[in-house]
Amino acid sequence: MPKDATPDFVAALAADIPGLAIRGEPARYHEEPRGRWAGRGPVVAPGSTGEVAALVRACAAAGVGIVPWGGGTGLVGGQIAAEGAVPLIVTLERMAAIRQVWPEENVLVAEAGAILADVQDAAEGAGRLFPLSLASEGSARIGGLLATNAGGTAVLRWGNARALCLGIEAVTPTGEIWHGLTRLRKDNTGYDLRDLLIGAEGTLGIITAAALKLVPRPASEGAALIAVPGPGAALELLALAQARVGEGVSGFELISAAGPAFLRETGFDIAMPMDPMPDWSVLVDLGLGAGQSAAEALEGLFEAAMEAGLAVDGVLATSEAQRAALWHLRESIPLGNRAVGAIASHDVSLPLSEIAGFVAEAPAELARIAEIRINCFGHLGDGNLHYNAFPVPGRRREDYAAVKGDIQRCVHDMVAARGGSISAEHGIGRLKVADLERYGDPAKLSMMRAVKAALDPAGIMNPGAVLRPPQRG
Amino acid sequence: MPKDATPDFVAALAADIPGLAIRGEPARYHEEPRGRWAGRGPVVAPGSTGEVAALVRACAAAGVGIVPWGGGTGLVGGQIAAEGAVPLIVTLERMAAIRQVWPEENVLVAEAGAILADVQDAAEGAGRLFPLSLASEGSARIGGLLATNAGGTAVLRWGNARALCLGIEAVTPTGEIWHGLTRLRKDNTGYDLRDLLIGAEGTLGIITAAALKLVPRPASEGAALIAVPGPGAALELLALAQARVGEGVSGFELISAAGPAFLRETGFDIAMPMDPMPDWSVLVDLGLGAGQSAAEALEGLFEAAMEAGLAVDGVLATSEAQRAALWHLRESIPLGNRAVGAIASHDVSLPLSEIAGFVAEAPAELARIAEIRINCFGHLGDGNLHYNAFPVPGRRREDYAAVKGDIQRCVHDMVAARGGSISAEHGIGRLKVADLERYGDPAKLSMMRAVKAALDPAGIMNPGAVLRPPQRG
Repeated sequence: MPKDATPDFVAALAADIPGLAIRGEPARYHEEPRGRWAGRGPVVAPGSTGEVAALVRACAAAGVGIVPWGGGTGLVGGQIAAEGAVPLIVTLERMAAIRQVWPEENVLVAEAGAILADVQDAAEGAGRLFPLSLASEGSARIGGLLATNAGGTAVLRWGNARALCLGIEAVTPTGEIWHGLTRLRKDNTGYDLRDLLIGAEGTLGIITAAALKLVPRPASEGAALIAVPGPGAALELLALAQARVGEGVSGFELISAAGPAFLRETGFDIAMPMDPMPDWSVLVDLGLGAGQSAAEALEGLFEAAMEAGLAVDGVLATSEAQRAALWHLRESIPLGNRAVGAIASHDVSLPLSEIAGFVAEAPAELARIAEIRINCFGHLGDGNLHYNAFPVPGRRREDYAAVKGDIQRCVHDMVAARGGSISAEHGIGRLKVADLERYGDPAKLSMMRAVKAALDPAGIMNPGAVLRPPQRG
Repeated sequence: MPKDATPDFVAALAADIPGLAIRGEPARYHEEPRGRWAGRGPVVAPGSTGEVAALVRACAAAGVGIVPWGGGTGLVGGQIAAEGAVPLIVTLERMAAIRQVWPEENVLVAEAGAILADVQDAAEGAGRLFPLSLASEGSARIGGLLATNAGGTAVLRWGNARALCLGIEAVTPTGEIWHGLTRLRKDNTGYDLRDLLIGAEGTLGIITAAALKLVPRPASEGAALIAVPGPGAALELLALAQARVGEGVSGFELISAAGPAFLRETGFDIAMPMDPMPDWSVLVDLGLGAGQSAAEALEGLFEAAMEAGLAVDGVLATSEAQRAALWHLRESIPLGNRAVGAIASHDVSLPLSEIAGFVAEAPAELARIAEIRINCFGHLGDGNLHYNAFPVPGRRREDYAAVKGDIQRCVHDMVAARGGSISAEHGIGRLKVADLERYGDPAKLSMMRAVKAALDPAGIMNPGAVLRPPQRG
């Protein structure tokens, strides 16, 4: 079992690694966005990959657990060790350089501590786009985004964090440095350990830098909010859009009436593009090449959708400001959710052809447990729904404490029965360890445990995240 | 160390697994395309995933090595165990079903033994495209294509085999079945073992089925052969093309004069689109959406390239037959190479901005070793060059036996010095085990060995491929 990161241990680390910044125990490293857990542990900030390797070796020798810390924006507790031995929290915030940009290769190398928005800016400065985009991009850091294989609103076109990474530099759980910062598009020299460390949530090593894929900036961009009869029609609309502009569909976000309603109910001053907002709508975002017009493509799509009965109303953004306003509405939905206070949140994905059935089935199933409100929204093009349960007016989330587990179980059982995932983009962290055991494939779990034990024999890397630590003695 | 797959062992297998087809020892399972090695071992053909699991358990218990067999088209000996204990060859050819197609999800599930061309046909039958495309598509099978993370001519746009796979069903080295045939676009439930098994060349398990990504068929396709001043200009032409049509560039293949010359020299009757063929040319293939014209886009691109000094001549395919003829020329180049007889073949990749320097530097460096001819061609958009050395007229490959190793070392050293890969798409197999040890990152190699030992403790999965078996006793 891991040992506590004691003051003596930290003092010895500081003496051995002169460049290491000792941060004490600031509260912000013990908090997480949803307020579910309180962490513990001293915080250190290495300034170089060599220092990361040195401290990992010291932790491995002493049996002290490490919690790697990015921007602290994770939603499943991967960055918070509330139980077990007191860990050493290792923040990568001092390693935030954009090391180099190769615009002609569409590659940028950033250190793990670089904030996503800064990477986006560096790409823009080189005339390119780094397409990873999510609500926390002003504080989330590259290391954490890769460790959690972050998703967001541009996955449909450009893939998740894993798909945007060509190579990584990382420190292994035994304190070796893997110099894997390749800028190659093709490299079949051995096992794909890059993709193994990406998404491992810091349990198989610490990513210290990454070679990231950039893409050309679309020449013409535009967005529309299109009211649709329901999620099934929305998916047909997506197919129609892709048949017309191919990969030009950059975003396809589902919005249900509950999202805007919660924003109004809790006093957010956000302009609504339609009044009343429809039961179901999609935010369609296009990014097209030179010589094409996103506005014309959206108009054509909308007309074709109306003819096909896939659209009932629509608002086309005719300026960049209007497009930004549509996206602002979409990205504000989680704020309204937090203000209302969710009983239970679910980050699920489904095979595309199972979505309409799930959305039709779920409310009645859940109504048998409790009277609730549902906000169903998310990245429809990826099959990724955020399916969250809320109190009815006049009641509070606390009133549902007794049925919260039943609601989660009900949603996850329905999703699993349809071949879906109980964590589409947020990961496992510490919140979903038991869910992974319940819903995960047993052979895959066996292989995961074997890989973890092989690469981290001392069990020091983010103990308790993703996999339950082995019981000893 | 593994034990021999004896006649007694095979007889016991046959008795235990009634459905298993016993193939004897047909020569074709002991051969490979380049004629470098001769394999050995009895061949069995399971008819179901359960039978694969049963035979793997039997091999694990007996310590008998397994060589998984796809279409036998690999170029690095991954399917041929010429040394060590006699293995059991397990062909997946009886498991060749297309289990299901979901056109509305752009997903197809195929068994490992399905031939690539049959998968392409099934996708076409559903109005979709399975974009993986390579010269051996008439015999290569899905299991082998995934095990080697196959590349080919469509990687630029759609990625390699790994990028085209959503989920796999596989038998682990301990004989468990991993039911991982997800059709999900996003799933962050635990370690990415799918991408670990893909590209592991059968050393970490046997893929028995895969959920594959389909894409919409482009509405308008076209191709052009454009003569360019050199590889550097060709890469600028690629950037120009992508700026104009974005992801619409489906293929971008470099052809040097040696390829067509070898075809003529060895008597292939292939029409040449230009006479004489230029020193350097690129085959540009476009696939565009509805309402766009690939022919017009190619004309516009060619004019812009001429203006920018990136093109010196060009032939636009104005019919599908002409487009097919251009591709036929490109795909015939390996035939000419084989007819001439390469001294040494290199499947390398480079960062895009290093390609022009490498191509300029390499001939002079190699000329210091021997007087040779070079055919440099390949998937330029991916940074993937096939850089092959041939005898000068009047000499034979055998005359160069003494310097073959020096030539390979020289090419690989130059590639490694520029941050490239010594195996871009063909894999490691048995041919490049020592190269991987020489050029691979030591920390990555340590992790690979740890993963192999953890997942395949009996060392039975494709022994000797990718990693040298541990020395014991």
